[in-house]
Amino acid sequence: MIERILSGEVRAVARAATWIENRSPEARNLLSALFPHTGQALVLGITGPPGAGKSTLTDQLARHLRAEGGKVGIIAVDPSSPYSGGAILGDRIRMQAHHSDPGVYIRSMATRGQLGGLAAATGDLALLLDAAGFSTILIETVGVGQDEVEIAGLADAALVVLVPGMGDDVQALKAGIMEIADVFVLNKADQPGIDKLEQELQFLLGLAHRPDGWVPPVVRTVASQGEGVGEVLERAREFARTGRRDRAVWWERRLREMLREQLMERLSASALAGAAQQVAARQRDPYSIVAEWMERIDSGKPISD
Amino acid sequence: MIERILSGEVRAVARAATWIENRSPEARNLLSALFPHTGQALVLGITGPPGAGKSTLTDQLARHLRAEGGKVGIIAVDPSSPYSGGAILGDRIRMQAHHSDPGVYIRSMATRGQLGGLAAATGDLALLLDAAGFSTILIETVGVGQDEVEIAGLADAALVVLVPGMGDDVQALKAGIMEIADVFVLNKADQPGIDKLEQELQFLLGLAHRPDGWVPPVVRTVASQGEGVGEVLERAREFARTGRRDRAVWWERRLREMLREQLMERLSASALAGAAQQVAARQRDPYSIVAEWMERIDSGKPISD
Repeated sequence: MIERILSGEVRAVARAATWIENRSPEARNLLSALFPHTGQALVLGITGPPGAGKSTLTDQLARHLRAEGGKVGIIAVDPSSPYSGGAILGDRIRMQAHHSDPGVYIRSMATRGQLGGLAAATGDLALLLDAAGFSTILIETVGVGQDEVEIAGLADAALVVLVPGMGDDVQALKAGIMEIADVFVLNKADQPGIDKLEQELQFLLGLAHRPDGWVPPVVRTVASQGEGVGEVLERAREFARTGRRDRAVWWERRLREMLREQLMERLSASALAGAAQQVAARQRDPYSIVAEWMERIDSGKPISD
Repeated sequence: MIERILSGEVRAVARAATWIENRSPEARNLLSALFPHTGQALVLGITGPPGAGKSTLTDQLARHLRAEGGKVGIIAVDPSSPYSGGAILGDRIRMQAHHSDPGVYIRSMATRGQLGGLAAATGDLALLLDAAGFSTILIETVGVGQDEVEIAGLADAALVVLVPGMGDDVQALKAGIMEIADVFVLNKADQPGIDKLEQELQFLLGLAHRPDGWVPPVVRTVASQGEGVGEVLERAREFARTGRRDRAVWWERRLREMLREQLMERLSASALAGAAQQVAARQRDPYSIVAEWMERIDSGKPISD
């Protein structure tokens, strides 16, 4: 499996991606073996409000990168969708556009209901594609929730796509999105309101100074016609080259989550349910139950009935 | 300290509440000792959109309960506020209204930035007030976020306060709030639009059948004049008496969180930071680091440098 992935075999990659999505133990061993072969790919995050043209931009970036000769992995993340594994309609249509090209691999990821689990799985999937020889990985996310902010932290550069006609929404976006954007993409630049949008954005940028000193460039695009897409890529690479993104921040969070996840596997569902019943009936106090569990873990035992 | 709390001494209660807010280890030992003395109080959750009159209703409920001769604890939870410990302006004003009455204890709780931590601290605070002899505990929360839904799960009955003039907001509230409401309070019932609000609500209630078979009663109030407040209390007690709220659900979540919290205390911040640096520099792979940490925990050792 490791050999097949390192040689970029698509069926092996797809199978490993399913393991990652299901958070299965096989994924962990596989990724441990693959990790030394990662760190080559450029990982770009693409986010922004619905309707901003993220998918179109992602597609055009992929085209541009293919023309340069690189292989492209696309991860489409939709935290609001219960579907996963490439089942999202829009992505199916997109896959058809690239389906004859083995140099583009597209995978949809949706929430598994676990908080933080989506960003973790996305990070693992990016590592997998990195190991499989994809030179650029595009991670497309919708919205500005906690998941998206986290996912932006795993990218070498985060692109935020905005469009004219959002009105006061630019102000509303400020909180979450202004901090994560390394490059702003003003898409649909042929539409009215583009100047006003850029003015508003530049005003906000003038107020907020990033601690790392980077001033996010603002690039106008008409993604549907490929206009400005090359410049977006150039600016993103420029930011990535500065090495300003401290990947240790991402890994701190991930390592903590990984430890937590593995520790909690020691707690059986039935033991938990039984203990909760006892506490609800006030037969035992929760604090001493947890103290007992800690002792069991300290002696390497699982917590089960 | 235990004796002082059990005898209802306010200064001891206030000190313990601070321990709880700060998630200090003293709180854990104290609550463990107090737990057998809890389970006497009726815990009511009061939630709803801003401007619905939650604070006024809470105040009037407290007055009503005091007239009955019971002691009342009020926990005002505001996840959006960075302030805690009674520093919220509105609550200060309210405290003055009750300040000469030792039978009412008011405490504000705000987010500590930790996800889930707010509900946990609120639950612990309710246990503390329960042990201190407050016969009814009113927990007032703003909005319909995850925290509020969780907090409703710790109450014996959850009241949702709505007011006329919310327009389509009733529809919007549907998702989160309809499931947690055991009693609906239509406040400001002397204002126009109250009939329309009740119609809309009854329509929604007709669509959604709760698995426990309870049909949430709808009570009209003019809380500012105390009208309908007695009936709200009656309906809430009625629901609590049915025993439909499965407290084990709350405790399952809490026990899992408590275990996780205590396990993660084993991981020192510097060990985590050092490991994250190594992974970011690709000197070590994260999966083997976590495997090593698990081994340390299994042998009862902390994870530090």
